[in-house]
Amino acid sequence: MKLYDFRLAPNPRRVRIFLAEKGIDVPTVQVDIVKAEHKQPDFLAKNPLAGLPVLELDDGRHLTESVAICRYFEALQPEPPLMGVDALDRAFVEMWNRRMEFEVFGPIAQTFRNTHAFFAGRIPQVAEWGEVNRRAAHKRLAWLDTELAERRFVAGDRFSIADITAWVGIDFGKPSDIRIDAAHKNLQRWYEAVSARPSARA
Amino acid sequence: MKLYDFRLAPNPRRVRIFLAEKGIDVPTVQVDIVKAEHKQPDFLAKNPLAGLPVLELDDGRHLTESVAICRYFEALQPEPPLMGVDALDRAFVEMWNRRMEFEVFGPIAQTFRNTHAFFAGRIPQVAEWGEVNRRAAHKRLAWLDTELAERRFVAGDRFSIADITAWVGIDFGKPSDIRIDAAHKNLQRWYEAVSARPSARA
Repeated sequence: MKLYDFRLAPNPRRVRIFLAEKGIDVPTVQVDIVKAEHKQPDFLAKNPLAGLPVLELDDGRHLTESVAICRYFEALQPEPPLMGVDALDRAFVEMWNRRMEFEVFGPIAQTFRNTHAFFAGRIPQVAEWGEVNRRAAHKRLAWLDTELAERRFVAGDRFSIADITAWVGIDFGKPSDIRIDAAHKNLQRWYEAVSARPSARA
Repeated sequence: MKLYDFRLAPNPRRVRIFLAEKGIDVPTVQVDIVKAEHKQPDFLAKNPLAGLPVLELDDGRHLTESVAICRYFEALQPEPPLMGVDALDRAFVEMWNRRMEFEVFGPIAQTFRNTHAFFAGRIPQVAEWGEVNRRAAHKRLAWLDTELAERRFVAGDRFSIADITAWVGIDFGKPSDIRIDAAHKNLQRWYEAVSARPSARA
């Protein structure tokens, strides 16, 4: 297997952190988005949607979508569990991971895509939509702070894929100047705890 | 258990179709979004994000996010399998379901939310963003037509949750006048086949 990756993009980072938590080593191939390498025919043959990461399997097939890749590795190597331990726990971890995707990671990524100079001329930017998302991101971070008053990690007392999604999403707020408010002590405590894990440097 | 549902909303419909395919009967409670019942305190206590559907468990906890709810029922009753049959198949079904969410259902829903009169005054609409998504939706339907030239269903030869997501998403294009192009014969063939299943009326 090998993982098509780009060091500066948030979605491949989610998978790298997941693999680091599992202690799984997969060779990576860098696909430089800045140089539009993901739009070249040889990469589009792997993923016609041009997204990263892509896992190339030994049979030559290509698995895309960060969470699908993580789910495959969770099945290959269940320990430590990052996606739940029984049917109901798995459902709640999925709920929290999706909430982090749609309510935290999503608005932060949409702000970046629609307001940052990097994407000017690369995609159709709608600045007003970026600002709607910036406000949504701040609102959701305030909500997440109240949730984290009740437990250690996003989905419960165990670190999970939902923490990875939320942490990568929040860290990706920096270029858009979306940061954790100093008043949000629970969120700050959680962010520092996740940042201190060795996997955060993956 | 009971399922908080709204007949006119696309996400609860995904879960209703999933349950119909499984032959599982869960009592439903209608939450009328048009009357803003999802914004009332008693519903927000169930889901602070105000989204539908919500599955109320017998222990009083609330599971949200359509796919998390489906995954729980898939574990409770694996037959017929709608989310894959082994580790790799499950990963590919998840890949296709996510592609349908992010590339088909998502752009169609964003077009509706940002351009339809229903949401005027309810959410901050950005018409230009709606039109970006309308163009993306048409482009992705053309892509999906090419994918469906190669196989019977979205994720392979077996009907799966990815078909439910795509079909509900495409059907939700009607109020925004996003429809399958007559030239897209594979997509049309698939759409008619899924529409003919009894679950489509769930």
